[in-house]
Amino acid sequence: MGVRQTRGVRTIHVIGIGAGDPDQLTLQAVKALRDTDVFFILDKGEVKSDLTRLRRDMLEAHAPEGTYRIVEARDPERDRSAGGAAYSPAVGDWRSARADIYEQLIAGELGEDETGAFLVWGDPSLYDSTLGILQEVLERGKVAFEYDVVPGISSVSALVARHRTGLNRVARPVQITTGRRLAEGFPEGVDDVVVMLDAHQAFRRYADQDIDIYWGAYIGTPDEILVSGPLAETAERIERLRAEARERKGWIMDTYLLRRRTAEE
Amino acid sequence: MGVRQTRGVRTIHVIGIGAGDPDQLTLQAVKALRDTDVFFILDKGEVKSDLTRLRRDMLEAHAPEGTYRIVEARDPERDRSAGGAAYSPAVGDWRSARADIYEQLIAGELGEDETGAFLVWGDPSLYDSTLGILQEVLERGKVAFEYDVVPGISSVSALVARHRTGLNRVARPVQITTGRRLAEGFPEGVDDVVVMLDAHQAFRRYADQDIDIYWGAYIGTPDEILVSGPLAETAERIERLRAEARERKGWIMDTYLLRRRTAEE
Ligand SMILES: C[S@@+](CC[C@H](N)C(=O)[O-])C[C@H]1O[C@@H](n2cnc3c(N)ncnc32)[C@H](O)[C@@H]1O
Ligand SMILES: C[S@@+](CC[C@H](N)C(=O)[O-])C[C@H]1O[C@@H](n2cnc3c(N)ncnc32)[C@H](O)[C@@H]1O
Repeated sequence: MGVRQTRGVRTIHVIGIGAGDPDQLTLQAVKALRDTDVFFILDKGEVKSDLTRLRRDMLEAHAPEGTYRIVEARDPERDRSAGGAAYSPAVGDWRSARADIYEQLIAGELGEDETGAFLVWGDPSLYDSTLGILQEVLERGKVAFEYDVVPGISSVSALVARHRTGLNRVARPVQITTGRRLAEGFPEGVDDVVVMLDAHQAFRRYADQDIDIYWGAYIGTPDEILVSGPLAETAERIERLRAEARERKGWIMDTYLLRRRTAEE
Repeated sequence: MGVRQTRGVRTIHVIGIGAGDPDQLTLQAVKALRDTDVFFILDKGEVKSDLTRLRRDMLEAHAPEGTYRIVEARDPERDRSAGGAAYSPAVGDWRSARADIYEQLIAGELGEDETGAFLVWGDPSLYDSTLGILQEVLERGKVAFEYDVVPGISSVSALVARHRTGLNRVARPVQITTGRRLAEGFPEGVDDVVVMLDAHQAFRRYADQDIDIYWGAYIGTPDEILVSGPLAETAERIERLRAEARERKGWIMDTYLLRRRTAEE
């Protein structure tokens, strides 16, 4: 590729946009939106088009018209609602396919003096691959850029805010895990567990235990559904509501906190 | 107290204000600030006056002058930097002393048609007692109010954003815990652990293991310090930097992620 010495250096913002409520954008995120020339919007298929729409609405609301371009690409991500298949053993291949796309987007669509941005759902630090992929693209060494990360309100923070409860109890730990892990067993050493990416309602397995659930779907959006209470009394209702909502909208995103009652309480 | 039937109902916003960077406020938080008549600012003693100042600056920047009052009170919270003493067995008494104060503030300073707010550092869901105290005040039944929670960027999200890394690794869990807990042993079943409220650098105990640390102090503020790398190589440096900074400023807030290298990597 010859000598790649230029004055300009591409910059990329990885912007956490919150988990559904457009008002969850931070002032820092708004500044980053305004500072961006090229937005990369990776479409994860029709079922998620609502989410692509929300991103476009945010740009219209906050980035001055005419100051930016949008580049859309098809994200090779598989549908997680189909059972979290994205986390199959082939996850390495899948990540590398995404790195190809990101590399092409950055090299081909972003001028060397320009700033690009990826708008990441919730907080980029939680179950999101954008940072890992950018790191991989950098390591390949074919395209150079600088990047920074703007933290966002995660669906975890949004969940407990809507339920007006804490993540942890006083002086105690909390674990954040996946539905797949929870299906294998209740995590050791913690009585407060947040579960994401659960396509199979792994909480059902624990309905005979003294556990409260704080569940939320489509949190922060007009479709939001919240249920809380003892698992024994709520598990079936959540299952039903979840199935109905998924049927109605074609996709669902839900998260929940399991809180085991302990002797102290 | 007689019949307490009034048309107005006090409203309280519990507003997460981010962990240091004033631009971490969300648009939702800004709206809540603008909507508030009375801000309760609980001073935790002189060492934390920088934090009280940051709150006042936020109000000046976002809430229109003349539309609100500030009520300051002394928070009976003990100095956590002195070793997390707030989490002593007397934590129940201490919480009840705080509930007394909150009750008096709400009953005495907030008109029945007014809206009050507590500005909570970071995200109200993480190691913060405001929600528990408000719940206790409500249960006592002496003063009635409605309340909602505005999630904020936690120091945890801010930490990993600054280090441009994720909280979890692909498909794996992450635990958030306290320095005190970490001192008792490395949590079971997780290789990614975020530690808060650590006055004793509990990470030192693990410096002989294959663990990377992502450490940050005063994250998001002009005093921010970041260090990352293998624990064996960085533990001493962090200890030194921490001691110096604490000496210089009189107080410190630091958080870190421990990431154990596993066979896969
Ligand atoms: C790939 S992860 C991304 C998480 C995201 N980075 C965050 O910070 O929330 C997707 C999972 O997040 C959760 N999630 C995201 N947005 C949500 C919402 N609005 N309501 C409920 N759960 C949500 C669900 O558990 C979903 O399976
Ligand atoms: C009482 S807890 C409150 C946490 C807060 N609710 C949050 O969401 O970050 C205080 C602890 O948070 C962490 N912390 C808060 N702000 C921080 C900052 N700006 N930099 C580093 N650590 C911070 C430290 O571990 C500190 O001991």
